[in-house]
Amino acid sequence: MQYHVDGELVPRERATVSVEDRGWRYGDAAFETCRAYGGEVFAWDAHRERIERTCETLGMPDAVPDDLALRVAETLDANDLADAYVRVTVSRGVQPGKLTPREEVDPTVVVVVKALPRGGRPANGGERVWDGPAVVQSVTTRKPPANVLPPEAKTHNYLNSILARLELRRASSERYRPDEALLRDAEGYVAEGATSNCFFVDDGTLKTPAEGSLLPGITRRTVLDLAADESFPVETGRYTPDDVRGADEAFLTNATWEIRPVESIDGIATEAGPVTRLLQRLYDDLVESRCYD
Amino acid sequence: MQYHVDGELVPRERATVSVEDRGWRYGDAAFETCRAYGGEVFAWDAHRERIERTCETLGMPDAVPDDLALRVAETLDANDLADAYVRVTVSRGVQPGKLTPREEVDPTVVVVVKALPRGGRPANGGERVWDGPAVVQSVTTRKPPANVLPPEAKTHNYLNSILARLELRRASSERYRPDEALLRDAEGYVAEGATSNCFFVDDGTLKTPAEGSLLPGITRRTVLDLAADESFPVETGRYTPDDVRGADEAFLTNATWEIRPVESIDGIATEAGPVTRLLQRLYDDLVESRCYD
Repeated sequence: MQYHVDGELVPRERATVSVEDRGWRYGDAAFETCRAYGGEVFAWDAHRERIERTCETLGMPDAVPDDLALRVAETLDANDLADAYVRVTVSRGVQPGKLTPREEVDPTVVVVVKALPRGGRPANGGERVWDGPAVVQSVTTRKPPANVLPPEAKTHNYLNSILARLELRRASSERYRPDEALLRDAEGYVAEGATSNCFFVDDGTLKTPAEGSLLPGITRRTVLDLAADESFPVETGRYTPDDVRGADEAFLTNATWEIRPVESIDGIATEAGPVTRLLQRLYDDLVESRCYD
Repeated sequence: MQYHVDGELVPRERATVSVEDRGWRYGDAAFETCRAYGGEVFAWDAHRERIERTCETLGMPDAVPDDLALRVAETLDANDLADAYVRVTVSRGVQPGKLTPREEVDPTVVVVVKALPRGGRPANGGERVWDGPAVVQSVTTRKPPANVLPPEAKTHNYLNSILARLELRRASSERYRPDEALLRDAEGYVAEGATSNCFFVDDGTLKTPAEGSLLPGITRRTVLDLAADESFPVETGRYTPDDVRGADEAFLTNATWEIRPVESIDGIATEAGPVTRLLQRLYDDLVESRCYD
């Protein structure tokens, strides 16, 4: 494997960053996780826009290099990958050992890829990237309020989600293996999963928590757009765990999982019903038309 | 310079970590900042104990290597340093690209040092490491509640403090240059500075915010012990910014700054009065007796 580090393609074993890099010292970095299909990064413009916004929130508005898309393409090419997972990082780089950031930024830019075959369209022999529907468990770890960490910034400060996943380890038994944590906001309303946004279907309406204490995912946006295109009733709002547990259908979204059905929440069974399946088909169609045609 | 990385002394320019290390990807790492005086790390046992506790909170209870003190000593020796800043990191290391951590951990251990002459005892020609008393500004960024990130864990997820310091950039002018941010907890009570604990003296009593939403610093603990040894009245509690702004004296503590007087808070002048000076002298004595005798 070759990765792109600081402007250069390097073999995986030499893909390193300085221990003086603020990305290492403080998690002082913005990132994006994307999927490439047929050599094309899905929703690249949205990802680029979001990493620019994150860098702006972190006080480094010009850190994202103009040629970021080219670096991604070069990394895919170097590894002969068309269908891939792509992770792009822009850190504040090496600065003298003070916490207060300097205004002048020499960012460290890293692109990591790995093979990720297209999971959609079982008719075409595709396989989903997840092993099965998600088993979701709500946890006591809460999402940071907006005045602690802005929820729309996607950064290397990921311990909040890791602590949530560690709670699953403690909740696991031989007969119960939750694999996604459901986090609430400070007021107790459902926010999102550790690495996913959460949707559910209730009384024929597609519902998802409103922005405010969650990372507004690009896949989440795509799903909302697909539903609107179909004139499907959609609602964003504030929901309790009970609302989600009592839903007719539930699914999770992120760039890697796409649309992943939920099997159970806190041990209560849900189903991959007709709305989930319809949206999966529409998402598959969109990927086909945007990337493979 | 030479740093200690993953069990080996390496020249600074080769002191790097993999871009697949979870310390880089997620800030999934514990750390300590210490000071060495005369070749001796001050309060080493307390620092070692705290990094072990942090690793336990992060679900990797056995990650701290037994020979950590030796690695620090080797790094100081290799750079011919007796008086130094020492930063020790234990990250969860390289694991396959899933957010959920594996139980088996092969940690990445890093020791970074730099020269930091002993600042105490002006009589001995010492200089303080800070340029002058702190100019403190309270900010809108709040400390994470305990159910978002446990406050007693010292980790590489440091963006909350960085965002607080970035607020100072926006508040600065040619005539006003705050250099430490004062953060409140979710309820609006004073918690701590971006990299320091906060003390103030009021009506002859030394006061500092109680544990619960702050990192209980080792220098903070030492100062509380020194005050108790002197039978000086001490109180820990919940204080508003107004309590601190109206104090007779105020100072900040961390391992690098030791005891740093506060010049002003939100533009309101405070003073380095007799209690601050007494505690500085006692701290100097303690450093002398523990490390230089």
